[in-house]
Amino acid sequence: MSPKNVAVIGSGNWGSCIARICGHNVVNQENFNSEVRMWVFEEMVDGKKLTEIINTQHENVKYLPGIQLPTNVVANPDLVAVGEWADILVFVLPHQFLPRTCNTLKGHLKPGAYGVSLIKGVHVEEGKGMSLLSDLIRESLGIDCALLMGANLAPEVAQETYCEATIGSRDPAKARELKSLFQTNYFRLVTTDDEVVVELCGALKNVVATGAGFCDGLGYGDNTKAAVIRLGLMEMIHFIKTFYKDRGVRDETFFESCGMADLVTTCYGGRNRKLAEAFVRTGKPITQLEEEMLNGQKLQGPLTAAEVYTMLNERGLVKRFPLMSAVHLICVGQVAPNKFIDELREHPEHM
Amino acid sequence: MSPKNVAVIGSGNWGSCIARICGHNVVNQENFNSEVRMWVFEEMVDGKKLTEIINTQHENVKYLPGIQLPTNVVANPDLVAVGEWADILVFVLPHQFLPRTCNTLKGHLKPGAYGVSLIKGVHVEEGKGMSLLSDLIRESLGIDCALLMGANLAPEVAQETYCEATIGSRDPAKARELKSLFQTNYFRLVTTDDEVVVELCGALKNVVATGAGFCDGLGYGDNTKAAVIRLGLMEMIHFIKTFYKDRGVRDETFFESCGMADLVTTCYGGRNRKLAEAFVRTGKPITQLEEEMLNGQKLQGPLTAAEVYTMLNERGLVKRFPLMSAVHLICVGQVAPNKFIDELREHPEHM
Repeated sequence: MSPKNVAVIGSGNWGSCIARICGHNVVNQENFNSEVRMWVFEEMVDGKKLTEIINTQHENVKYLPGIQLPTNVVANPDLVAVGEWADILVFVLPHQFLPRTCNTLKGHLKPGAYGVSLIKGVHVEEGKGMSLLSDLIRESLGIDCALLMGANLAPEVAQETYCEATIGSRDPAKARELKSLFQTNYFRLVTTDDEVVVELCGALKNVVATGAGFCDGLGYGDNTKAAVIRLGLMEMIHFIKTFYKDRGVRDETFFESCGMADLVTTCYGGRNRKLAEAFVRTGKPITQLEEEMLNGQKLQGPLTAAEVYTMLNERGLVKRFPLMSAVHLICVGQVAPNKFIDELREHPEHM
Repeated sequence: MSPKNVAVIGSGNWGSCIARICGHNVVNQENFNSEVRMWVFEEMVDGKKLTEIINTQHENVKYLPGIQLPTNVVANPDLVAVGEWADILVFVLPHQFLPRTCNTLKGHLKPGAYGVSLIKGVHVEEGKGMSLLSDLIRESLGIDCALLMGANLAPEVAQETYCEATIGSRDPAKARELKSLFQTNYFRLVTTDDEVVVELCGALKNVVATGAGFCDGLGYGDNTKAAVIRLGLMEMIHFIKTFYKDRGVRDETFFESCGMADLVTTCYGGRNRKLAEAFVRTGKPITQLEEEMLNGQKLQGPLTAAEVYTMLNERGLVKRFPLMSAVHLICVGQVAPNKFIDELREHPEHM
């Protein structure tokens, strides 16, 4: 077997961080080419091209400043060229750019190439509802796609502080290969074949974290917040089992880093929680807070909650998921925030 | 069936709080006697007996001040008299007083009486190792014993803020009866037959929270803390499955309030976490910090960690439980606190 070429598709803070890990890991492993290519959406920084800065200074000065990249991580602005070269494509870019990126890559990949998605979120198409981002990759590119998810704030991983993540792949050989590509002594990995749970927890957690933020904004204490997080997790489990039951969903996967660990971290830190707290305390609309607190970026929690609510409503399941439903109805102004906890009083988990 | 008599054995803040809930609940249910008796260890408060204060002012001025108790909760200093009267004994007192309390009650209970334990901790006898507090109740009194555990800080429950708890009983009729005794519109209950998990999570969580405190004291961020909490939960699951596998342990019980919810709350708030953080930051011995921060009260985490370590060591399992083992070895000064995370780098979960 010739050594495999690893390409990172994306170069934000998490993309740069994971490219750095791959760069360090490939050099001593015969099964990987010792160069890692990183596709960078070209932009100018202080009059210079970002790819040139990365390839001369070995630092992504715009998205991961202060962190040295290994010299074998090579930035490249040509998506098709990077895609044609790659055996393993590490997708790590904002979810809204994925359809366009896949369209460009289509028809240009090597036989046998496969993807691994680090993108948190879901794909929403007008009139078609919610689908998995990994399915978009699988279907539009005709390749297999694994997942890597966990409680991983990029700046902390870049500082090499100890943390964990979960690799999801139905193919044990790919799971092993990806573990050898990504694991370091500070970035510790568990593999599972339960791809759907690995992927969807990362999207649904933001809905629960929005509820946790309401809870904080309303001034509730530790007991109530614990109940919100737990009921949120139970709804996540039930949601995935309801809508993806044919794809091998298992309870134990929710104990992995992609599951309860990422959920808890997001419900205590995380911007969904923070903005939802401000929403309750200030009474300002979410769009205004997105302008004020996130430079107009859209918050994932309310968007995902809206899609989840549509799916639940179509199946007549709103009452079975009172927490996620209430998060949506509060975000859109149909329920008052101070009714959030009342919506949980007759939760089906307690029947 | 004649209505059942409910007695609360203990009158600290959690005991008074749960007596208050029972008092409110029994009045409209035919299957319970409308009087709830609460055994109070008699003491003098401002020259008056605590039982008399409770029975005239309807407030436990010493342990739950500012909270009105219903008039049908009657304090009684005579443990044997309360025990002889009771059909359901709600055990809610500091674990170190349980053996003495059971000795006094022995031979004085009604036929068919049963217990429900709200006591978090384990029973340790010199030379005999660790055992379940509920087994002490079962064996010394010859009665069945259910459990009620969850993420329940007493002051918040007394304020009637929304929270959850878990009832564990192998007997479905008792589980139903206890749910009708304890559930209110703010105190929401889930029943399970998995008694051992319900009980042991409440003890083992303090070991993990001690580790979470070390992590905070060492200045680690959200990713590392999420990993510590998750690996701690995985060790709790594996520990209970190893030592209590003949008692019907199931994964899903760890998703209940007694499991991940109580663990998370304890690892973010909670005094084990707080004192362990101070231990790392100040370098003072734990006994000194117990004097300074807890008026000399013993912290549960280090005590339980010592017992867990003994059990693991006897079975040659220390390496399979690196987190709980490291917590003990750090508490007793055999490992430096700043080595805590290094002890997790080769965790069996990542192999």
